[in-house]
Amino acid sequence: MQYPEPIAQLIDSYTKLPGIGQKSATRLAFFTLGMDEEDVTGFAQALIAAKRDLHFCSICGNITESDPCVICADPTRDQTEVLVVEQAKDVMAMENTREYHGLYHVLHGVLSPLEGKGPDDINIASLVTRLQTNEAITEVIVATNANSEGEATAMYLSRLLKPAGIKVTRLAHGLAVGSDIDYADEMTLIKAVEGRTEL
Amino acid sequence: MQYPEPIAQLIDSYTKLPGIGQKSATRLAFFTLGMDEEDVTGFAQALIAAKRDLHFCSICGNITESDPCVICADPTRDQTEVLVVEQAKDVMAMENTREYHGLYHVLHGVLSPLEGKGPDDINIASLVTRLQTNEAITEVIVATNANSEGEATAMYLSRLLKPAGIKVTRLAHGLAVGSDIDYADEMTLIKAVEGRTEL
Repeated sequence: MQYPEPIAQLIDSYTKLPGIGQKSATRLAFFTLGMDEEDVTGFAQALIAAKRDLHFCSICGNITESDPCVICADPTRDQTEVLVVEQAKDVMAMENTREYHGLYHVLHGVLSPLEGKGPDDINIASLVTRLQTNEAITEVIVATNANSEGEATAMYLSRLLKPAGIKVTRLAHGLAVGSDIDYADEMTLIKAVEGRTEL
Repeated sequence: MQYPEPIAQLIDSYTKLPGIGQKSATRLAFFTLGMDEEDVTGFAQALIAAKRDLHFCSICGNITESDPCVICADPTRDQTEVLVVEQAKDVMAMENTREYHGLYHVLHGVLSPLEGKGPDDINIASLVTRLQTNEAITEVIVATNANSEGEATAMYLSRLLKPAGIKVTRLAHGLAVGSDIDYADEMTLIKAVEGRTEL
C-alpha cells in the first residue's frame, strides 16, 4: 500500500534536500500536515520567491535580489580590497563582524581533485577578469575554509595573481578566541606559534 | 547585515520544521537556491496540496484524501478486528507487511502524564463510540509503541474496553527477527522468555 498521493509527493520533495532520507522526510511530511495553514502557505511562497527573485551578482557572485548586489553597488566600500570566499553564506558571516569594509568575490566551491573540481569549475575566471578590468583593486584576501581544500585553493590563487602584481593575503590561522590551548589540535598550535605577534 | 529578504523568509520557514535549527535551515535554503526550478515548484505545490487535500478519516482517524478512507470503505477487509496505532505512519508500516487485513484506529498520540496528555487528548472517545455502534468488531489489537507510554496506553485501553466484552490484545514482545541475543536488552530478553512459544 502507498501513502495517499499528496503526502507521497511531499515526502518525495523532502528527500531531495541534503541529509534528509526516507524516514526523516516522512516525519517532516507528517509534521507539515499538522502545521498552521498559514505557515505552510508561507513556506511554499518562500520556496517560489527565493528561486524566482534571487540571482548571483554578475560582479562578485554573491546571492542578491538586485544586480549588482548591494555591496558591489555601494561606493562607500573600500574598492581596493577583495575578500575571496567559498560560499555566499561566508559573505554573511564576514559582514556580521562589521569590521571588513571592502568587496567580496564568491567562488561557489573550492579546488577539489577528489571531487574532480578544477579551476574551471569554480568562479575564478571572473575574479581574474575583474582584477584585469578594475585597477583600483590592490589586495586579494583569500578567506577559504581552513582545511586542505581551502588551503590548496588559496595557494592556487596566490600563484595565479601574484605575478600580476596583486597582493594576495590569507586569513590568519591560530587559536579560536575563548579556546583552551590543551584542547587545540597540533596543527592549530603550530600555526599559532608560527604566526605569533609582538605585544 | 541581513540576508536578502527572499532567502531570510525561506530560512525562517525551514526553522519551523522539527529538528532544524538556524544553521541547518540556512544550509537547506542555500541548497534550495541551487535546485532545479521544477523541483522547487514541485516542492511548493506538494506543500500546498498536502495541506489542502489530506484530511483525517472520520471513522478511523487515518490520513486520507477521501472520507471514509480506502481501508474503512473496503468491504473485503476483516470487519471484526481493529488495530489501534499511535500515528498514521504506523498504519502504513502495518499495511506494508501485507499480513493484516482488518481495520485500523489512529490515536494521534499516546497517554503521557509527563507531557500532560490524558485520554481526552487522544482519539480514544471515537474508538469507544465506534465499538458501541459497530457490533461486528470483536477484537481490538493494541499496536502502540513498545515503550512505557505505549504500554500505559495499552493497559488503559484494555481496562476500558474489556468490561464491554471486547477482546483486547497487544502485539508480542520479543527478539527482533535477525537480531543477536547478546545484543538484546534485558527487558526484551525477559519478555521473549515470558512469551516463548512451543515448537
